[in-house]
Amino acid sequence: MERTFVADTLQKIGETVTLMGWVDNVRDMGKFGFIDLRDKTGKIQCFVGSKDDIQKVTVESVVEITGLVKARPEKMVNAKVATGTIELETQSLTLLNRAEALPIPVAGDGYDINEESRLKYRYLDLRRERLSKVLRTRSALVREFREYLYKDGFTEVETPILTASTKEGSRDFVVPSRMNPGKFYALPQSPQQYKQLLMTAGVDRYFQIARCIRDENLRADRGFEHTQLDVEMSFVNQEEIMTEIENLIKTSIQKMGGKLKDQVFPRVTYAESMEKYGADKFDLRTEEEKAEGVLAFAWVVSFPFFKKVDKEDAAEVADGKSGWTFTHNPFSSPIPEHIDWHLKGENVEQIVTAQYDLVCNGFEVGGGSIRAHNPEVLRSTYKIMGYTDEMIEKGIGHMLEAFKYGTPPHGGIGLGIDRLVMLLCGEASLKETIAFPMSYTGRTAVMNGPSELDPNFLKELGLEVIKKN
Amino acid sequence: MERTFVADTLQKIGETVTLMGWVDNVRDMGKFGFIDLRDKTGKIQCFVGSKDDIQKVTVESVVEITGLVKARPEKMVNAKVATGTIELETQSLTLLNRAEALPIPVAGDGYDINEESRLKYRYLDLRRERLSKVLRTRSALVREFREYLYKDGFTEVETPILTASTKEGSRDFVVPSRMNPGKFYALPQSPQQYKQLLMTAGVDRYFQIARCIRDENLRADRGFEHTQLDVEMSFVNQEEIMTEIENLIKTSIQKMGGKLKDQVFPRVTYAESMEKYGADKFDLRTEEEKAEGVLAFAWVVSFPFFKKVDKEDAAEVADGKSGWTFTHNPFSSPIPEHIDWHLKGENVEQIVTAQYDLVCNGFEVGGGSIRAHNPEVLRSTYKIMGYTDEMIEKGIGHMLEAFKYGTPPHGGIGLGIDRLVMLLCGEASLKETIAFPMSYTGRTAVMNGPSELDPNFLKELGLEVIKKN
Repeated sequence: MERTFVADTLQKIGETVTLMGWVDNVRDMGKFGFIDLRDKTGKIQCFVGSKDDIQKVTVESVVEITGLVKARPEKMVNAKVATGTIELETQSLTLLNRAEALPIPVAGDGYDINEESRLKYRYLDLRRERLSKVLRTRSALVREFREYLYKDGFTEVETPILTASTKEGSRDFVVPSRMNPGKFYALPQSPQQYKQLLMTAGVDRYFQIARCIRDENLRADRGFEHTQLDVEMSFVNQEEIMTEIENLIKTSIQKMGGKLKDQVFPRVTYAESMEKYGADKFDLRTEEEKAEGVLAFAWVVSFPFFKKVDKEDAAEVADGKSGWTFTHNPFSSPIPEHIDWHLKGENVEQIVTAQYDLVCNGFEVGGGSIRAHNPEVLRSTYKIMGYTDEMIEKGIGHMLEAFKYGTPPHGGIGLGIDRLVMLLCGEASLKETIAFPMSYTGRTAVMNGPSELDPNFLKELGLEVIKKN
Repeated sequence: MERTFVADTLQKIGETVTLMGWVDNVRDMGKFGFIDLRDKTGKIQCFVGSKDDIQKVTVESVVEITGLVKARPEKMVNAKVATGTIELETQSLTLLNRAEALPIPVAGDGYDINEESRLKYRYLDLRRERLSKVLRTRSALVREFREYLYKDGFTEVETPILTASTKEGSRDFVVPSRMNPGKFYALPQSPQQYKQLLMTAGVDRYFQIARCIRDENLRADRGFEHTQLDVEMSFVNQEEIMTEIENLIKTSIQKMGGKLKDQVFPRVTYAESMEKYGADKFDLRTEEEKAEGVLAFAWVVSFPFFKKVDKEDAAEVADGKSGWTFTHNPFSSPIPEHIDWHLKGENVEQIVTAQYDLVCNGFEVGGGSIRAHNPEVLRSTYKIMGYTDEMIEKGIGHMLEAFKYGTPPHGGIGLGIDRLVMLLCGEASLKETIAFPMSYTGRTAVMNGPSELDPNFLKELGLEVIKKN
């Protein structure tokens, strides 16, 4: 018999339907009993007349129940439940998968369960209403973003996962090549260079829901992977791309039922932000707006292009000899008024980058810039950071070459999907928005990773594990 | 001034517009000249009255041209070009990025250029009309697939890139963990286990445009990465999921303008296919249908679950002691009629798996199955393949455990996006459908990967490269 979803039973009073789902609750009354059956659309009370049926089911078992949808007598109506006006009179019950006692509860919000258990049994954790709603919200938000961009002439393009190291400021994860023992691919920290090359290729308007993978120190709410809505546009200036992204965000968030504090996102310079808030991100909401669940977006602009390098950063970024490194993105352009300084390497501390960060409720939710499409501007960025010609050629020679063959002015942004979903759902951690997040100790959810490799496999990769003394 | 796309100029006769794009062609007539300007929507002839302007541009330079859209006199109309009835009379021309002489031509289909050059200069290769159309077709096809599934109640869920080894029949790429020196993550060969766990989690209908990464021997037309439309559904039988997928394909392909040979996809058993075509994939088209560009989809069903292991496969798959390995997917269920044999390990060579492969024009374009959601059925699969209890626990213990806590009957499929785009575009190689494919020798496009690592970086990973003698 065809399956009916719980939410549709309200329209089927007097009909016989077949429901499939989980046993949310069982009440054994002796000779009969009640089951609350749950599917992704809701819950419904099922009267079960068979003692055997009631005794064979356990909480969280999977069942198929065929029965008659009946209106409840008025005094039995439960106004707290969407299907509280009806009940299913069970005619037959099939136990599709019997559940043993669960290691973690799936009722409640689950915040009080320790991370290790929640991630080991993530497939149970995700059954709770809160998280199942987060997954659906995430899917729906990404759908809105995509549809907006498709309609605006954007082309979605996938870029490689196995790529080359691009030194974007974090450490790369690397992947040994069996075909080239001793050599390594890198996983993408972002599709930055590929998306710029797509502009050189004439794609004009690109987007991708892109996985970014960075070997950063883990924090309580962050794993090694995050997802960004990655956008790049040709023939735009800073104003045009900020308008495009602001409209994208406003349209999509409002279609999702999100409330915005401002229909025009305030713009704050980096200097103002540091002076007023002591940071480059801030929360513009009043206490009342916080309680209302309002989203307060704002742009931060006019960042310095360069900063003095600390010892720690120097090791990671350039050779550190010049004392300068980029604050945001080495592929950015200075603002038009500062290109002369930039090309001459003058007034380095005063050069402003054509960067725009999007903040919301005190978090950074996106960042982008107009890029240097003139190879001499890009070369100057690296010169200022102390790179020799040889280092520049080795590091970004392919980009400098591409920019010699007709590259349009372009710019883009990366918007943090995890962060936006977190704010939209009123969650406090990025991990609540990810189906299978990594633990704080770098363990994969459910499965046993990372793990040791077979020594023969390792040998084929041309590698040996260093033995500890 | 606001940008106008070339395709929109036809509606703007008598108006002054600003176009931005590439110089497709220059004809220097001495005191004046002509430029064909190209953007992603088309090409238009621009009359340039300034000798200086004509002399400063080169082919493939990026320009901004403001001018008056004029109808051409009837005898000057070029019927071969979409904009052949008009011409732009240039008022001002700005050179946005001057192109040096290109290392490869961007006109023509590019098939005759060697792979190395095409991939090194992929950002130029993609400018050719053929490939720019393939990228747009790919984006549009994926959009159709997504919209069909969203409307049918599917939730899109992302699964991890850094995961644990799952032994799906190919070799894993591995990623050393800096946090756990000497230990490794694996990149996903497919989201097989995660999507099944999402069914345990109650997601009910899942999809993802998923990257699958396998360390397989490279072929001329295949790199290490491919993209699949990954689908999984709960509470379905084989017939229901095949119908769902058939409708998805038919609707999406026809919306894209693709022509189908059959409105009902023929179903062929594995045995019939082997007897008639000598293979488990086949091309049902007549010569006439081939010329028409028809897509001939068909299902192949009733595959044997197990096959005798060769020496080579044994090393990769199980311990090989039993002599049996799976033909398609160890997580599949046998067909209902053969579950008894399966549980008892009897008549192994006769057990049929609930597997369905989708073929088109002689290629496999997808494969899926109803899964074993009963832990004893899954355990039997591994027992038949000669796994000990300890090996089973280590390999799939987490799946067996998940299936004890209420897992619905479920099944799914993976459809090869690269292959479908290839067939839809009439291309002969998967690489023609990928923005930045890998070379036959495992080199990344444009960028220099794989490459050697800094020894200090390697040390932090707890690794050493074995020196060659």
